[in-house]
Amino acid sequence: MSKINKVAVVGGTHGNEFSGIYLLKKWQSDPLQLARKSFSVDTVFANPKAYGENKRYVDHDLNRQFGIDDLANNELTSYEQTRAKAINQQIGPKGKANSDFIIDLHNTTSNMGPSLILLQSDLFNRQLGAYVKSKMPKAVVVFEDHTSVDEHLFLCSIAKQGVIVEIGPQPQSVIRQDVLDWMEAMTKHILDFVHLNNTNEVPDLPASYDAYRYEETLKLPVDEKGERIGMVHQSVQDNDFEPLRSGDPIFTLFDGTEIFWEGDYEAYPHFINEAAYYDNNLAMSLGKKIVVSTN
Amino acid sequence: MSKINKVAVVGGTHGNEFSGIYLLKKWQSDPLQLARKSFSVDTVFANPKAYGENKRYVDHDLNRQFGIDDLANNELTSYEQTRAKAINQQIGPKGKANSDFIIDLHNTTSNMGPSLILLQSDLFNRQLGAYVKSKMPKAVVVFEDHTSVDEHLFLCSIAKQGVIVEIGPQPQSVIRQDVLDWMEAMTKHILDFVHLNNTNEVPDLPASYDAYRYEETLKLPVDEKGERIGMVHQSVQDNDFEPLRSGDPIFTLFDGTEIFWEGDYEAYPHFINEAAYYDNNLAMSLGKKIVVSTN
Repeated sequence: MSKINKVAVVGGTHGNEFSGIYLLKKWQSDPLQLARKSFSVDTVFANPKAYGENKRYVDHDLNRQFGIDDLANNELTSYEQTRAKAINQQIGPKGKANSDFIIDLHNTTSNMGPSLILLQSDLFNRQLGAYVKSKMPKAVVVFEDHTSVDEHLFLCSIAKQGVIVEIGPQPQSVIRQDVLDWMEAMTKHILDFVHLNNTNEVPDLPASYDAYRYEETLKLPVDEKGERIGMVHQSVQDNDFEPLRSGDPIFTLFDGTEIFWEGDYEAYPHFINEAAYYDNNLAMSLGKKIVVSTN
Repeated sequence: MSKINKVAVVGGTHGNEFSGIYLLKKWQSDPLQLARKSFSVDTVFANPKAYGENKRYVDHDLNRQFGIDDLANNELTSYEQTRAKAINQQIGPKGKANSDFIIDLHNTTSNMGPSLILLQSDLFNRQLGAYVKSKMPKAVVVFEDHTSVDEHLFLCSIAKQGVIVEIGPQPQSVIRQDVLDWMEAMTKHILDFVHLNNTNEVPDLPASYDAYRYEETLKLPVDEKGERIGMVHQSVQDNDFEPLRSGDPIFTLFDGTEIFWEGDYEAYPHFINEAAYYDNNLAMSLGKKIVVSTN
């Protein structure tokens, strides 16, 4: 991993996830809080129009607009498709990025606590996860390295390295102090790690740690017309990162029927009942627990 | 209190409060769940357009459009102002209502649990609160009788008697099973009570019970431009209906400064950090604890 010279800290990719937006305001008025000696930091307010309208997005989910083909497709002209091109020019471009590292700040309505989502499992990311966990015992690390960075559609995929800070539970359009404090702390630990890595001063880390790897997404129960007919079972609600085993209840239909999970592995649900995912009737992500080596 | 012959159960007054909307669908396909022998029941889906757009309201908050003057003002023509007139015609009209009783179903992002908001403190309402609490030990009763029913702007103020079922915490645009179950149970207990009251079969109730009376609304800290500069203090967050005393921390400014409450009474905050109230920078409601007699 070569030295990181340029970092972009991005907030407001979703306009109703307030923690990152308010932290950006704070840091823009006091840039020393983000400054580290070995790299420069830019801040980007990704979707100000959605924030102005107090919603996740205006036309399309901005955090799904960073596919290489879509960025090159000039027929995609909605607000977020256009913002994606502008952001790609500003801190990308994807595949040959000017920025070395992006931290994209998100909230979830799910009870995920302070979560760090990593797109790669190279030494840099593995050690970054260990460092953040060593500083924040409640932090959870999730690897979404089931696809290559190039194939990811996320904003943070346009730099050589990019991570998502994902903190919940927080309703849309609300600021919770606990969630804000977690996001601020995690962002600072990430910046500290980048600096320590740049200067070859990464402290001794545990040889390994527990984390999760994305496996699949479950949909809410729908009828033949696509209408939702059930909801997340109350025994799963709020239990992000608690094990789910074959035969466990997972959904309750509105008529009272319980639906049981029939997977063949021990799953760790997260993004459980995330408000923003109702658009596509997504109920939760499932991960597998993994042991991550730091060397 | 004369016999109640006609009841209206209203859901979706706010389009992103899903519990009432899904319960209406369920009850409309199985009307016997709401039926009681001594009265008829109508169901009303109050704001379908806001639900279609997945937001609280399209133009104006529907649940503030039921002032007598506003209902008579034909120059108020926004979607919700127009819906208010139509609903007033359907189950009102305010002041000489065709409906005897309205149950309006709401969700809050605040940690209020199953709450029943009563607009009057006559014997009927006092006993209704006692009955619901006897059936649901977690239920909380809040009296918003600081103003007359005529002066209230709420949808449920257009009948002779009206109550708000207010259940949280639930993020906007989400269905939580616990919240849905609480709402369904509370609605059925209310209908049961109306029937028992109609037939002079109200069971023995405790002589008195604890409840809360609305006192005042606190605003979030803002600067001279009206921009929010702080948030609800983490020691208050989620502690709806826990006592707040003079000198207790209440807000944290984004620069870290703590703000303390300087009231001269023991307050019981509720609607703490409700997402929908950010429009007006409202931080929470404060109530006083009261002892309510059932005779």
